[in-house]
Amino acid sequence: MTTDENYKAKRKFERRVPRGDDQERLVCSDCGFIQYENPKVVVGSVVTFGDRILLCRRAIGPRIGYWTLPAGYMELNEDPETGARREAWEEARAAIQIERLLAVYSIPRISQVQLIYRASLAEPSFEAGPESQEVALFDWSEVPWKEIAFPSVHWALGHYRESRDQESFTPFSNPEGETGVY
Amino acid sequence: MTTDENYKAKRKFERRVPRGDDQERLVCSDCGFIQYENPKVVVGSVVTFGDRILLCRRAIGPRIGYWTLPAGYMELNEDPETGARREAWEEARAAIQIERLLAVYSIPRISQVQLIYRASLAEPSFEAGPESQEVALFDWSEVPWKEIAFPSVHWALGHYRESRDQESFTPFSNPEGETGVY
Ligand SMILES: [Zn+2]
Ligand SMILES: [Zn+2]
Repeated sequence: MTTDENYKAKRKFERRVPRGDDQERLVCSDCGFIQYENPKVVVGSVVTFGDRILLCRRAIGPRIGYWTLPAGYMELNEDPETGARREAWEEARAAIQIERLLAVYSIPRISQVQLIYRASLAEPSFEAGPESQEVALFDWSEVPWKEIAFPSVHWALGHYRESRDQESFTPFSNPEGETGVY
Repeated sequence: MTTDENYKAKRKFERRVPRGDDQERLVCSDCGFIQYENPKVVVGSVVTFGDRILLCRRAIGPRIGYWTLPAGYMELNEDPETGARREAWEEARAAIQIERLLAVYSIPRISQVQLIYRASLAEPSFEAGPESQEVALFDWSEVPWKEIAFPSVHWALGHYRESRDQESFTPFSNPEGETGVY
């Protein structure tokens, strides 16, 4: 999402405490614009068709070629469930039904909050969107565990497995002591 | 959080589609910096001591003088529960224990996602922080319903009441058809 153009411009920023503030911020040394940095929200889902789980093989970095859940940054003026449906469509051309919130993970080092839903497909219709090399349904025993893109994908699959027969549960959070850094 | 300095600088921004992008963004007409706009995460909690609920009377706009939950923007490099504890300390000098996630609300018009927790106080120790005029514990029948700051505070109090005896439940989301705009 960061283009070269943005990257270049960003280098004019310096860290200082703006007047009237009490924390260091990124301030443009040319024009004084203050870039408030905020945590970003990722919305995604563990999508199933029957007992099988939908995964997408990444066509873009980071972790190109590795498998992930359909997930991505929530957009402006969107609610989280709409965002999770949009991402499943963009990455896997999958029209999903969201069932419930599975987990809220956080990756403080990169200031990311992830809202991961349980969702299902009414029919096994999907194909790779532009950010995926391949999309497939996996039985639990076939999940490519050694080629999973991110720790939080591992967590979400495990938490899905743990709660799949429960109708109502408190959403999971990071496994004890895990920060999501890989 | 937006200082005058930032407000002035912001007016140099224009909306256009940057090279290599497919959406309009805010681009600085002086230096080309791209201001990606993202949803913001609010973390807060319904805090109880016994049967009473902690509310804060706002000392700042919007809705100055109205009652709200201790809540605010999640900071960088923070996890949501730490953020909710920090806000309770900042606004009410309350050292809270977080129990579980009560609700995930969204207010798409202002691109806000709210993570609201159920939390409790071990002892009735609190006082107004700099952003509060007053902090108090209310019995349910004493809650100042006509002086509540935001729709989502109403929702959270109702959802707390509805689930207070449940150990495990799927977090609530916006009441049907409600968008959080007041
Ligand atoms: Zn600039
Ligand atoms: Zn500028």
